[in-house]
Amino acid sequence: MEDSWATLGVDLHLETGGEATRSGVRKGLTDALREAVRGGRLAPGTRLPSSRSLAVDLGIARNTVADAYADLVAEGWLTARQGSGTRVAERAVPRPAEPAPRRRAVGGPTYDLMPGTPDLASFPRAEWLKAARRALYAAPNDALGHGDPRGRIELRTALADYLSRARGVHADPGRIVICAGFVHGLVLLGSVLRARGRREVAVESYGLDFHWNLLERAGLRTSPLPFDELGTSTAELGSRAAVKVALLTPAHQFPMGVPLHPDRRAAAVDWARREGGLILEDDYDGEFRYDRQPVGALQGLDPDRVVYLGTASKSLAPGLRLGWMVLPAPLAAEVVEAKGGADLNCGVLDQLTLAEFITSGAYDRHVRGARLRYRRRRDQLVAALAERAPEVRATGIAAGLHAVLELPPGTERSVVQAASWQRLAVQGLAGFRHPAARVPERDALVVGYGTPPDHAWAGALEALCRVLP
Amino acid sequence: MEDSWATLGVDLHLETGGEATRSGVRKGLTDALREAVRGGRLAPGTRLPSSRSLAVDLGIARNTVADAYADLVAEGWLTARQGSGTRVAERAVPRPAEPAPRRRAVGGPTYDLMPGTPDLASFPRAEWLKAARRALYAAPNDALGHGDPRGRIELRTALADYLSRARGVHADPGRIVICAGFVHGLVLLGSVLRARGRREVAVESYGLDFHWNLLERAGLRTSPLPFDELGTSTAELGSRAAVKVALLTPAHQFPMGVPLHPDRRAAAVDWARREGGLILEDDYDGEFRYDRQPVGALQGLDPDRVVYLGTASKSLAPGLRLGWMVLPAPLAAEVVEAKGGADLNCGVLDQLTLAEFITSGAYDRHVRGARLRYRRRRDQLVAALAERAPEVRATGIAAGLHAVLELPPGTERSVVQAASWQRLAVQGLAGFRHPAARVPERDALVVGYGTPPDHAWAGALEALCRVLP
Repeated sequence: MEDSWATLGVDLHLETGGEATRSGVRKGLTDALREAVRGGRLAPGTRLPSSRSLAVDLGIARNTVADAYADLVAEGWLTARQGSGTRVAERAVPRPAEPAPRRRAVGGPTYDLMPGTPDLASFPRAEWLKAARRALYAAPNDALGHGDPRGRIELRTALADYLSRARGVHADPGRIVICAGFVHGLVLLGSVLRARGRREVAVESYGLDFHWNLLERAGLRTSPLPFDELGTSTAELGSRAAVKVALLTPAHQFPMGVPLHPDRRAAAVDWARREGGLILEDDYDGEFRYDRQPVGALQGLDPDRVVYLGTASKSLAPGLRLGWMVLPAPLAAEVVEAKGGADLNCGVLDQLTLAEFITSGAYDRHVRGARLRYRRRRDQLVAALAERAPEVRATGIAAGLHAVLELPPGTERSVVQAASWQRLAVQGLAGFRHPAARVPERDALVVGYGTPPDHAWAGALEALCRVLP
Repeated sequence: MEDSWATLGVDLHLETGGEATRSGVRKGLTDALREAVRGGRLAPGTRLPSSRSLAVDLGIARNTVADAYADLVAEGWLTARQGSGTRVAERAVPRPAEPAPRRRAVGGPTYDLMPGTPDLASFPRAEWLKAARRALYAAPNDALGHGDPRGRIELRTALADYLSRARGVHADPGRIVICAGFVHGLVLLGSVLRARGRREVAVESYGLDFHWNLLERAGLRTSPLPFDELGTSTAELGSRAAVKVALLTPAHQFPMGVPLHPDRRAAAVDWARREGGLILEDDYDGEFRYDRQPVGALQGLDPDRVVYLGTASKSLAPGLRLGWMVLPAPLAAEVVEAKGGADLNCGVLDQLTLAEFITSGAYDRHVRGARLRYRRRRDQLVAALAERAPEVRATGIAAGLHAVLELPPGTERSVVQAASWQRLAVQGLAGFRHPAARVPERDALVVGYGTPPDHAWAGALEALCRVLP
């Protein structure tokens, strides 16, 4: 029967429990509709199907529906107006709902210099949509199916080209696995390494406790390596027999900002070769380097001993949830297996869009533009410090979206506290220190100068200068 | 310095190991470029930066770069042509690459009637892009940040309205968690239930071994409930003291196609209330019902005892990797915790787009159109069987995108084999039977009539009729 419920304006689910008599059906329908409104299943303002449509849908007489509607209008649950049909009354009790999303929670900071997020206002919306359109129209139908657990071949191919060109990574599409950001990659690697019998991962003295916790949750202890002005002391790896895995940020130590010294890069790779070790290279902001000699990926030195992890979270936006791993071949197979045999985690549309975004050159253009903007902010930060807080030294500023501001000993907590009174969100270095790290305590702020939108940057910088000693 | 490497047309990473003499630098650059081309890091056809730009970038003399380029042109690695700049020669050895994606692997089937995938050719590309544009321009900047691990509030609100209206689900946005399809939801639930001390999940006698395996991998045994023409025998739940969790497909048993009998729906909910049990309701194709009385979600009977799991994989496309769970409040908190405290898995752009797609009415329109098309195919399948294979009975055809064709005893394997000779992909029922199921063996095909694109449907149906007894 063509003219059925399938042609209604909206789908409406009702449990009509009444008996088969006309009055029983009418009562059943009335009760069911009332309950749907009362319980919030039909929201205020919702337009109901016409009585004719609903009658066909339910296989009952049209008058029965009209009568039920009239009952509920009389009761105040529904409203009927010429030309706009029957609707759920606005006075009906609404479904308990959360408040609409807003930019900033009440009582939240006025200025945000927390590290870890790029300037979200500069996300290239128009260019991204252009790429999405081209990518979706170019995609074969089966791209919309379950797909390859490694991720779409278009994106893996584009990344292989890009990473080898821009970051010196030895990449081929077969050893790339797309993941939902760095964290997803780390979770997958953690479970694979635990399954291989690993119990411990060497990490850096400074880093994100969130990452350490994910490893611990996977059953892997984290033990910090020493740190000094040449970066993380990788020589120490050799003296720890139980450790076969190291998580490092070689291009730009997070959050301290130094690149790993060339001797220590070599030492790390030598250790991995000698001991059968594996290095996890977190290249979180490798695109953003302001000095003239870019630091290439460690992975280029030995693709069989280093897992390269990259992300679109800094270069585009964390909300994309797109990251990538370049893996030694045996590990790639195990990671795919850990993903559960299905591409569980990344929507293909964003993958296809990013592939188009990279191959069309829009990614390079966006990164270059962002780099100039961030570098300008970095220069303004350095200039402002020189003028307003000459005692404070900014380090780790050759690259990335954040700087470390060294404070006089013993002042970190009071500066962070003063910032929060000024409604300036900023983080002290203490929160980035591994609990077991054997490094002298240092007082410092980690300032994410990439975080605010352009219009808020000058105000944020001014607020920062006010709280510095 | 404004005019630096940051302004180049492409990023190029080189390790120039040469000494500081001009000839040393030239040799270092030449070697590095040659190695980059030979190793595939610079793909054939890639345009190199101008010698001026690269010189600024590397902080060396322009002539040094020009000489290095000239050397490599002479060696055949690069080509230089007036007006198109210097490029990597097409003859250069390319990076080992996978073949380009194609619609169908060589030797793959000509016709595909495997269940589990909708007609991907009918994905509403234009409407989806329209919604993506509106959604992305309307999104606040912070929507592109790390976000709520439950998923975007816009999508959870839209789903709460839609699910209560169309599926009779008691939903409020605070208890909805967006996940990367049903499988991701099942993985999250599996780990939470295991952490709660559960050891066993009652499943149906017929289902997907892929789902059973995911539960087993989470440390949960699966034990099948009996099955007959009224659906899964939920009365049996009461006799299994160790079982506190049941995974069911109440609206449309997969793959058998029967709805769970009302008495058995009630028995399942009564069991859950009495024993503190939990029902996982897999509502994989609830949108597609061709009979007149839609079967509402079991969750509506007791939202504190039933987890509702829905997905966009059947109504739109599996490649979106978008699903949703409506959870009892305590479980919602545990599932969010299991997600790792960060929204690890779903890109916000598709979430915002789906929210806009639903609230604009495009989702209802798409589902109604698809329902009519699938029902037409279902009718054509039934008519063809009546004419060409009157011995074969189609069951489970009141809803969904697949039918079960009952075959004469002992013929299933030979029919599947005959189909593969005809290059028709179709699945026998045996593969959907739980290894421990105590149900009589039945010979049948599970035919996914929703799978082929329109142009291939008639041919697929003809091929199917040819192999039936």
